[in-house]
Amino acid sequence: MSSQTLPPISNKHQISALQLDVPPRLLLGPGPSNAHPRVLQALGMRQVGHLDPSFITLMNEVQELLRYAWQTDNQLTVPVSGTGSAAMEASLANTVEPGDVVLVGVNGYFGERLCDMAGRCGGDVRRLEKPWGEVFSLDDLRAGLETHRPAILALVHAETSTGARQPLEGISNLCREFDCLLLVDTVTSLGGVPLFLDEWGVDVAYSGSQKCLSCPPGISPLTLGERAVEKLHRRKSQVPNWYLDMTMVSKYWGKERTYHHTAPINMNYAFREALRLVAEEGLEARWQRHQNNAELLWEGLAELGISCHAPYEYRLPSLTTAIIPEGVDGKAVAVYLRKNYNIEIAAGLGQLGGKVWRIGLMGFNSRQENVTLLLAALKDVLGSF
Amino acid sequence: MSSQTLPPISNKHQISALQLDVPPRLLLGPGPSNAHPRVLQALGMRQVGHLDPSFITLMNEVQELLRYAWQTDNQLTVPVSGTGSAAMEASLANTVEPGDVVLVGVNGYFGERLCDMAGRCGGDVRRLEKPWGEVFSLDDLRAGLETHRPAILALVHAETSTGARQPLEGISNLCREFDCLLLVDTVTSLGGVPLFLDEWGVDVAYSGSQKCLSCPPGISPLTLGERAVEKLHRRKSQVPNWYLDMTMVSKYWGKERTYHHTAPINMNYAFREALRLVAEEGLEARWQRHQNNAELLWEGLAELGISCHAPYEYRLPSLTTAIIPEGVDGKAVAVYLRKNYNIEIAAGLGQLGGKVWRIGLMGFNSRQENVTLLLAALKDVLGSF
Repeated sequence: MSSQTLPPISNKHQISALQLDVPPRLLLGPGPSNAHPRVLQALGMRQVGHLDPSFITLMNEVQELLRYAWQTDNQLTVPVSGTGSAAMEASLANTVEPGDVVLVGVNGYFGERLCDMAGRCGGDVRRLEKPWGEVFSLDDLRAGLETHRPAILALVHAETSTGARQPLEGISNLCREFDCLLLVDTVTSLGGVPLFLDEWGVDVAYSGSQKCLSCPPGISPLTLGERAVEKLHRRKSQVPNWYLDMTMVSKYWGKERTYHHTAPINMNYAFREALRLVAEEGLEARWQRHQNNAELLWEGLAELGISCHAPYEYRLPSLTTAIIPEGVDGKAVAVYLRKNYNIEIAAGLGQLGGKVWRIGLMGFNSRQENVTLLLAALKDVLGSF
Repeated sequence: MSSQTLPPISNKHQISALQLDVPPRLLLGPGPSNAHPRVLQALGMRQVGHLDPSFITLMNEVQELLRYAWQTDNQLTVPVSGTGSAAMEASLANTVEPGDVVLVGVNGYFGERLCDMAGRCGGDVRRLEKPWGEVFSLDDLRAGLETHRPAILALVHAETSTGARQPLEGISNLCREFDCLLLVDTVTSLGGVPLFLDEWGVDVAYSGSQKCLSCPPGISPLTLGERAVEKLHRRKSQVPNWYLDMTMVSKYWGKERTYHHTAPINMNYAFREALRLVAEEGLEARWQRHQNNAELLWEGLAELGISCHAPYEYRLPSLTTAIIPEGVDGKAVAVYLRKNYNIEIAAGLGQLGGKVWRIGLMGFNSRQENVTLLLAALKDVLGSF
């Protein structure tokens, strides 16, 4: 330092912040959900390097456990080093080439986001629309594929904005008939809602860590099946996104172990623990638990005179859109729940803004005591307005 | 679930993984460095929502503490939700428009990466080259600016691949004369090496969390000054990267608090604690500590007959490239240190592969006991080969 003449240091922004403390929230919104305590413990473990032999072992375990959760054999199954939207963008940036027709099923907020992202990747975006809360039938999709002849059909399995579950059975046959890839958003379904990527012929999928997997946000699963990997390797142009370029990232997660970017070590610790909890519980029991607690919630809401936006047949167990009763100030209720009960539920998004509350029962938070407490708190607040 | 006919669940990937345990490594490579224990404690704190009032307060504190560490008043100073390479890509994706000439100073591995990324953003990339380990003079830069007339000049302040520190004084005057933005990589300098963004007229900078800030990787600082923000708002084309689009991200970190993507909550906890430690110690003391321990290392290496690749005048205190002595198997030494001492040092990267070890003394790890241990361990291993 001696050889440099340095300017004076400014203390203008040198604030004195207190030791971190945050309220003990019960996160029953659309995510993040509360992480499992074992996940938080793993998160705070001391670090190793991103090429340490112990970390390489951990990487293999993460990939294998993720394949179990998704029910896929896909080799290219990795955690992306960002939150769910990063994996969403990775799914498109790698598979969409400039000019590719991308047909997006838009029946909620995240369908809109897929359109935005696919356009930025150079895709020729076509929209297949349904009212928010409804889902696409095989006939709807066939008609869309016939009209647009896309390279990729993108659908949202679990729409966090509407609470609707898009059935996926049979769609991959259509996609093969029309020679296009099937790309699916499983952000609010992975680990909480029945999902069989390989059986259902999904070519590309992504998810988030902070929903039904009960891991903090900051890492997000992505998987590409054989047909998607082939399309990736056939690309004439580079992947437009360096950070999310799976031709490079897959070499770090594959046999080569070539350095690309420094992996988020501790988020991988946490993610492994979250996936270990899924494997311990088993998918069948986990899906059933989510369904059971959601049924309890729906029954309790009905008793309070609150109905659900999504029809029962397509209703997600992980995320319920509850219609705000006439004359009730939805925002005031949410604030009351937060201030008096430390419970977070969320407002509606987009078209459903002001019309519904979004209530999540995801992963570790899908427990009977949470449903009971929320219903009692709702009864209290609705009586006191 | 009753209404669906589901396929059988495959247990093929349902591996039984043990409780997480990792070796107690001392990370003296180019990063990640060991996180400060207080940072790991904050990391594992229970979550709140990404729009919780307590989290909004935390966001403001993070931004303010980051401005102190960088010595900048820039309003648009945020942590990007990914590792350092994500912030690097964000710095370019937001400021480079298709066809913009981007002049990159290439004197190491990360200059190469800047070229790759700038090209993917549509930039017309021009290279200004120097041998690895050397730095650019004002005359070099003036000549480059005259020849290429770029919209952006990109330089690496602290080249992690070479251990060289690029002096930044005076460059911004040149950039203003040639009407271009000055973009600087401060990944291995922020929090460990004297750095005055505003005094030195830097328009765009990014960094990583896992170097001199001693936070785990997974969050990465980015800042844009007024001239860069103006260029961003003047863009004719959308930012090609949705996840890193600062026209949207800045609304979540600004007064609007508009939801963009779910922030990595716990990584923000950790990052706040890391920045709080910087403010507590004070920049002057922190920079001096890094310099003192680096001097100790260099003296000790000299006593072992090991010289440094980067000239003393431009040598980084945070990262030393130590030349592997003739006849010594550099890789075997690193493996020995890891196996016998739980110490991680790294191999050379790119052109310097096989020629140097990279030794980091960053943040919490820049301590006398670590230098003493490493030198003793090196003495042991060099004697035993």
